[in-house]
Amino acid sequence: MHCPRVCRAVSALSRGALWRSRVQSQSTASSLDLSGIYPPIATPFTANEDVDYRRLEENLQKYQQIPFKGLVVQGSNGEYPYLTEEERVEVVKVIRKNLPRNKLLMAGSGCESTRATVQLTEKMVSAGADCLLVVTPCFYKGKMDTAALVHHFTQVADQSPVPIVLYSVPANTGLELPLEAVVTLAQHPNIVGLKDSGGDITRIALIVHKTSAQKFQVLAGSAGFLMAAYCVGAVGGVCALANVLGPQVCELHHLCLSGKWDEARALQQRLIEPNTAVTRGLGVPGLKTAMEWFGFHGGACRSPLRPLTDAQTQQLKKNFSDFLI
Amino acid sequence: MHCPRVCRAVSALSRGALWRSRVQSQSTASSLDLSGIYPPIATPFTANEDVDYRRLEENLQKYQQIPFKGLVVQGSNGEYPYLTEEERVEVVKVIRKNLPRNKLLMAGSGCESTRATVQLTEKMVSAGADCLLVVTPCFYKGKMDTAALVHHFTQVADQSPVPIVLYSVPANTGLELPLEAVVTLAQHPNIVGLKDSGGDITRIALIVHKTSAQKFQVLAGSAGFLMAAYCVGAVGGVCALANVLGPQVCELHHLCLSGKWDEARALQQRLIEPNTAVTRGLGVPGLKTAMEWFGFHGGACRSPLRPLTDAQTQQLKKNFSDFLI
Amino acid sequence: MHCPRVCRAVSALSRGALWRSRVQSQSTASSLDLSGIYPPIATPFTANEDVDYRRLEENLQKYQQIPFKGLVVQGSNGEYPYLTEEERVEVVKVIRKNLPRNKLLMAGSGCESTRATVQLTEKMVSAGADCLLVVTPCFYKGKMDTAALVHHFTQVADQSPVPIVLYSVPANTGLELPLEAVVTLAQHPNIVGLKDSGGDITRIALIVHKTSAQKFQVLAGSAGFLMAAYCVGAVGGVCALANVLGPQVCELHHLCLSGKWDEARALQQRLIEPNTAVTRGLGVPGLKTAMEWFGFHGGACRSPLRPLTDAQTQQLKKNFSDFLI
Amino acid sequence: MHCPRVCRAVSALSRGALWRSRVQSQSTASSLDLSGIYPPIATPFTANEDVDYRRLEENLQKYQQIPFKGLVVQGSNGEYPYLTEEERVEVVKVIRKNLPRNKLLMAGSGCESTRATVQLTEKMVSAGADCLLVVTPCFYKGKMDTAALVHHFTQVADQSPVPIVLYSVPANTGLELPLEAVVTLAQHPNIVGLKDSGGDITRIALIVHKTSAQKFQVLAGSAGFLMAAYCVGAVGGVCALANVLGPQVCELHHLCLSGKWDEARALQQRLIEPNTAVTRGLGVPGLKTAMEWFGFHGGACRSPLRPLTDAQTQQLKKNFSDFLI
Repeated sequence: MHCPRVCRAVSALSRGALWRSRVQSQSTASSLDLSGIYPPIATPFTANEDVDYRRLEENLQKYQQIPFKGLVVQGSNGEYPYLTEEERVEVVKVIRKNLPRNKLLMAGSGCESTRATVQLTEKMVSAGADCLLVVTPCFYKGKMDTAALVHHFTQVADQSPVPIVLYSVPANTGLELPLEAVVTLAQHPNIVGLKDSGGDITRIALIVHKTSAQKFQVLAGSAGFLMAAYCVGAVGGVCALANVLGPQVCELHHLCLSGKWDEARALQQRLIEPNTAVTRGLGVPGLKTAMEWFGFHGGACRSPLRPLTDAQTQQLKKNFSDFLI
Repeated sequence: MHCPRVCRAVSALSRGALWRSRVQSQSTASSLDLSGIYPPIATPFTANEDVDYRRLEENLQKYQQIPFKGLVVQGSNGEYPYLTEEERVEVVKVIRKNLPRNKLLMAGSGCESTRATVQLTEKMVSAGADCLLVVTPCFYKGKMDTAALVHHFTQVADQSPVPIVLYSVPANTGLELPLEAVVTLAQHPNIVGLKDSGGDITRIALIVHKTSAQKFQVLAGSAGFLMAAYCVGAVGGVCALANVLGPQVCELHHLCLSGKWDEARALQQRLIEPNTAVTRGLGVPGLKTAMEWFGFHGGACRSPLRPLTDAQTQQLKKNFSDFLI
Repeated sequence: MHCPRVCRAVSALSRGALWRSRVQSQSTASSLDLSGIYPPIATPFTANEDVDYRRLEENLQKYQQIPFKGLVVQGSNGEYPYLTEEERVEVVKVIRKNLPRNKLLMAGSGCESTRATVQLTEKMVSAGADCLLVVTPCFYKGKMDTAALVHHFTQVADQSPVPIVLYSVPANTGLELPLEAVVTLAQHPNIVGLKDSGGDITRIALIVHKTSAQKFQVLAGSAGFLMAAYCVGAVGGVCALANVLGPQVCELHHLCLSGKWDEARALQQRLIEPNTAVTRGLGVPGLKTAMEWFGFHGGACRSPLRPLTDAQTQQLKKNFSDFLI
Repeated sequence: MHCPRVCRAVSALSRGALWRSRVQSQSTASSLDLSGIYPPIATPFTANEDVDYRRLEENLQKYQQIPFKGLVVQGSNGEYPYLTEEERVEVVKVIRKNLPRNKLLMAGSGCESTRATVQLTEKMVSAGADCLLVVTPCFYKGKMDTAALVHHFTQVADQSPVPIVLYSVPANTGLELPLEAVVTLAQHPNIVGLKDSGGDITRIALIVHKTSAQKFQVLAGSAGFLMAAYCVGAVGGVCALANVLGPQVCELHHLCLSGKWDEARALQQRLIEPNTAVTRGLGVPGLKTAMEWFGFHGGACRSPLRPLTDAQTQQLKKNFSDFLI
């Protein structure tokens, strides 16, 4: 694990060479098409908070009926900060085994330090990830300026054998990946897109505009502003709500792509309240509770996340009343 | 001025009766069509910071060439907090005299106290305003909850002879008019719309959705998210940038209304950087400087707003380079 | 009122000369001793929201029994943003008439524009103010940087015949007067102190340190951190709580000055919850309600401030239980 | 590692019994005296970012000359989020080996999940920690309310064989441990104190007041407000600056304890600018750079933290000019 400096340098070099050869030979990074809808899947636990791989597999079976582009594993809704490194990798392995090859497996490999992120990235690729979602480090948020973040993501992208998707989620990290950093990083051949969960639509439009020469792909990080994001140039969405209302979110994608804006608007408007409920409203415990109502295994969260109170469950039910029979 | 309680009560009653009869007889409040583009016009000053009415009139002549729906007088860009009450009313009078009757004159009458807002509202109507833009009071922001704001706007709307448009501008007030307050107030027959300058597109879509029974009209408060706002159901925009690039902003409105989304997107993207420059980037001093470049009188701001530094002027020029010859 | 430029320039000059002569001859600005406790007095209103001058005078009689250094008129607790300019001046006149000459009358003359602040400053001095409390302008908060604020306060101080106290109250204005601005302004001969309501004790200590050559005087803007502020070098306090528990707040001042830190600590700790209740907890409506319990006229606030709910009143009672019999 | 539920329950029980017997027999948790100064030590790295244990030991030798109460290992300044679990434990082992028994070793064992925190707590105790500093989990900050945090810390404290110190550091976590949670947790017999890095002195005073029956001990989390914290009842400090200016920070402690407030104030004021520089100003890279100037090994940080720029180094030098010869 603690291989000497020279060994790591060589290894980094060969890895850099690896993706460069890949890029040039067959599946270039920038050719990876991200467009479409992804549920950032939840991680089911047993009663004593162990990962419940059987229920995870059952969820995966059900997701195959829905026209998703792929799955995001260990986005914020996957409770990844509560998983050990071993669990993070094992979950990806299990999903790869159960996921048809024509579905993208985008795995979260972000850690606080650059070296840990590089190492986990490699493990995720070995476990079967097609591309990686890398969140902004955030603990020392006062120091995570454009220079630090460009350095971090460049190191990770240089050494990753598969393409990288940047991930900005200020509600959790307290930090928005600066627009200048995004525009700079979009020029890296192994960075293909951004999942933006902040929801600032002006910023999303400007990112699309300023990266148009790079075919950089923006994914909306929430179903709440999905239609508006398509409107200004996004190509897809990673939406917590797709864990619950997958067909509806995919339908919204389809309506936007086919220019049926009036129908899209009507559907978008109906999705906002359920979406808010399972994101900033009631968070992952809300998401997992709603999943149960729609035939998926949600179950409990790991502590310190707490189960919903009865009043919260009633509120959630009201927010989904439009979609519950 | 300080008329006794009984007199004011009667007066309020008769005013209430006034708009109710108006509503029922001829031009109902909810029939006032707000759709379209409005520049929130700047207030030109002389070298010693007096209002320069002559230059104001010259600007008005030029704005008549542009297919605006109307003008907003004393939005944030009008430096209204720096004008005396007398100046606020006088500016509206001058504009009314110079504005064709088929253009809407929407005047800002918001003050911190309810009684001052009610009184200024009346004066603005006498001065010729067609409808009023009423900003959230904000000094005691910790106390300005839904109950307080609903009470405030209801009092103002009850006593106003013309329709009211709510105004939420958190960048200046440090306060967002809560969604619950908007939904409640939308049911008031004399409240016809909202200018939302916060730019949270999910919130805008949800407001449109939850007020659809009331034909409540949402105006985007900035050109930065104008297209996205139309996309989710807004009907127009009050855009600082329209003071400078009026024809382009009107063209964006037109493209969105006619469903030319690809052309709209391209134009929207080009407008974001100039828009940011004259709003949260360089503010009113930036707006007034850019106005000079495009043939309008901008001039200085009242103190404590300071003129741009040379470096800021260069930056502004760069942001508008696409539109300067 | 709108005298021509030349007249104003001369006038400013003579005013500048005025305070300079005062400074040099008799009561220099920097010799004004601010140390001590000031209640930022509330403004009583009648049932129909007019200023109730009779009740104001009755409160003043009662305050004379308490060893205050003076009174602050039209700090945030005076609802000054809800008063007209005429009312603001009239209130100061009434207070001057009722206040012994050995008590300082510090009047708030801050407005959004520099010119309005200069004009109101003059009127306040004519009405009898001994010194002025000038709040940061805040509507265009994005532009209120050190340069703008230094310019604003310098203009006001240059033209004021009496000393100026800076006022930073971020909970209401959304803006903290930058430390750099304070340090620069402390060098102005007519600026003698700062009321700091932000409560950042590190900042307060640093301001005392960096202005020690100027004998700049810092007043704590709340009883919540009064002892800590003395500890790091403040000389007094402008405390909402002193409207209710004046003797106790003065006692805390006395204990701190005489180095009885253990007794001071015990008293300080007991004052925090009542203090929080009448400041950021329940605001001016809470303050006015508590005043009634202790023999003062509080009464209603002007709208849009709302009266306390029953639940809030119960909460308030609990917070004051230590001091109610 | 993944022992079955029943085994863990038993284990928790016996652990609970363990500290209860400790508490009742010999060294009760609440008898652990925290008063004094602790440097939250930095972690030195080699050029290729491995932990440099040799330099760590050299720093420890030098710290023995300073009258610290003990050391905090893996507070925010220890870059703990960048260390692997193995490294976190190994660092504690090395420090224990080098630290005299009469110095307290307070080790950070906070992780995002409760189960990981419990496990790391046990390992830290085995490695030699005398007590544990447990930071608030923060990724799902919207869900980390009082109920969730009380549950988390109670679980950890129930299962820890040694006393727990709560740790609130909002600048990094974006989350302040609510006062209600602190007051509740102070009643747990195995929770003995709080390190508060937020610096809200009113809150610190109120915590001291409301936990006085529990002899709960508050440590200031920064040298910037150390004197004020003593003034309102804190008993010590965990101060980044003590890594650089240890003797001076200990002297400030001594002056406050002996009631020499005037001397204390003068020293406190001189320490603020250097303190700000190595905390929110320039962060851990600033701290490590300053350490080099005062004879300690600081060195580089792990990426993504970046070294200081030349301009930042110059600024830092200026901030320390008072203490550099």
